[in-house]
Amino acid sequence: MEEVKVFAPATVANVSCGFDVLGFCLDHIGDEVIVRKSDTPGVRITRIEGQDLPLATKENVAGVAVEALLEKVDTPFGFEIEIIKGIKAGSGIGSSAASSAGAVVGVNALLGEPFSRKELIAFAMEGEKLASGAAHADNVSPALLGGFTLVRCGKKPDVISLPAPAALYATIIHPKIELRTADARSVLKKTIPLEKAIQQWGNVGALVSGLYTDNYDLISRALVDVIIEPERSVLIPHFNELKTAALAAGGLGGGISGSGPSLFTLSRGEEVAENVRQALIKCFEPHGIPFDTFVSKINAQGAKII
Amino acid sequence: MEEVKVFAPATVANVSCGFDVLGFCLDHIGDEVIVRKSDTPGVRITRIEGQDLPLATKENVAGVAVEALLEKVDTPFGFEIEIIKGIKAGSGIGSSAASSAGAVVGVNALLGEPFSRKELIAFAMEGEKLASGAAHADNVSPALLGGFTLVRCGKKPDVISLPAPAALYATIIHPKIELRTADARSVLKKTIPLEKAIQQWGNVGALVSGLYTDNYDLISRALVDVIIEPERSVLIPHFNELKTAALAAGGLGGGISGSGPSLFTLSRGEEVAENVRQALIKCFEPHGIPFDTFVSKINAQGAKII
Repeated sequence: MEEVKVFAPATVANVSCGFDVLGFCLDHIGDEVIVRKSDTPGVRITRIEGQDLPLATKENVAGVAVEALLEKVDTPFGFEIEIIKGIKAGSGIGSSAASSAGAVVGVNALLGEPFSRKELIAFAMEGEKLASGAAHADNVSPALLGGFTLVRCGKKPDVISLPAPAALYATIIHPKIELRTADARSVLKKTIPLEKAIQQWGNVGALVSGLYTDNYDLISRALVDVIIEPERSVLIPHFNELKTAALAAGGLGGGISGSGPSLFTLSRGEEVAENVRQALIKCFEPHGIPFDTFVSKINAQGAKII
Repeated sequence: MEEVKVFAPATVANVSCGFDVLGFCLDHIGDEVIVRKSDTPGVRITRIEGQDLPLATKENVAGVAVEALLEKVDTPFGFEIEIIKGIKAGSGIGSSAASSAGAVVGVNALLGEPFSRKELIAFAMEGEKLASGAAHADNVSPALLGGFTLVRCGKKPDVISLPAPAALYATIIHPKIELRTADARSVLKKTIPLEKAIQQWGNVGALVSGLYTDNYDLISRALVDVIIEPERSVLIPHFNELKTAALAAGGLGGGISGSGPSLFTLSRGEEVAENVRQALIKCFEPHGIPFDTFVSKINAQGAKII
């Protein structure tokens, strides 16, 4: 095998109450990453389609991720990478994570799979470190493993795969405004009331239980973020109006995707998710801000060779 | 049926990272509650064996719990209650919850089961309100439902039953010192760092996942409380020494049971749990403080008619 093409999916991190620990993987929205063996050692990004992103290996998330991987194996050849961006950088649905994940999956395939998907997480995280200054695993984990993932904090991230009920669909609305992750971080308070933290971890536990038991009502009750959303939602125009519309249309719950500006809503069944999408369009269109919407099943597989 | 005898089990609330939301049910350690129909309407506590606790209905947790239940049904007869205390009040393993739970289970049985076990929680909580000033569900829920329970906060508690892996055993050590719940509450800070809260809710999610997947290693990694235990453990003599001994003997993890002074350790298998018990005895005996220890399977059933 001399060349592979990888579909690298978009992902939703944070997931309401699960700030900084939960994420899930979207379907059919993502980047395509073509990885090709080369006689020249090292990594070169030869082409990026669809967006103006740096080609220099050390300035490109995929380049950095693959370099981290190549430090752990001996290989007589190098790699060329082409990225066809399907996810807009800065949209809050794991654009950098997708490119990093897709690149390491492609290189791993061409090397004969020396690493497991879980082992690839650490390499893809190096891409995240370049993108946001911190080596977060909350987007790369679902991009690589699929489904829902939970990341326990620690010196090394401890990533746990959680199941996704079969009828769970996500609706995404991406208001095309600029919202820097650093700004989204800076609105957060460094200390929080213990009482609210208890509510939050009760909801995280309940959400995990709902995922294991296909209990959509419980998932709905648990999708409540009493800590981050009240602070951060002010940065997203018409957030409350959008959320109200999504729930009124039958959505189970939702919130800010990653650090925004995209919003996600989870629904039971594709039809409800589509109703939510229509309600979001109706709600947001009058405001004159450009936006995208889409509906996606939860992708149980993660990045895949196509 | 004119009379029933109920075994009302001891319980562990808080469960490390799951402060105020998680609890689990112990086996064979508990109160016995005898409930008898009477021609005189209302509730009378006729006997309490083993401890000096108030007989007056409104001052007794079981009396208050049954009164709350009787407000919701019409019945031509009353009830007499005898309580044989197997759990020492103030030990931190749900003494008041056991008596409340046992009493409402007995009355419910004599009435022909008008209420489900989940519905009984609200009545038993009235007993907890009398005992501690707050209507907590974290001990009465596992006492009534068995296994592990998670209580989401809200206007009404939202109680979720979680499975318990079959080989999970608890070791309890009860240092016989007085530790008031109010004091244990007062050492807690009202605000906590967001960063630590994130660690905590990651651990709660991971622990719930471990319970569903019988993943003892994950349960072990998740049994970490970075918020409450550092504050509260100073109230329990030789806490760190005991915890270290329990883990060295093979325990998966543990912490303060309820608001103390008892400590719990979870282990995989009865043999390990017994090794933990021996290690705790060896560690605590030299200090000259009276104490009890026991090993218990997780009780999947909760309070039961015997």
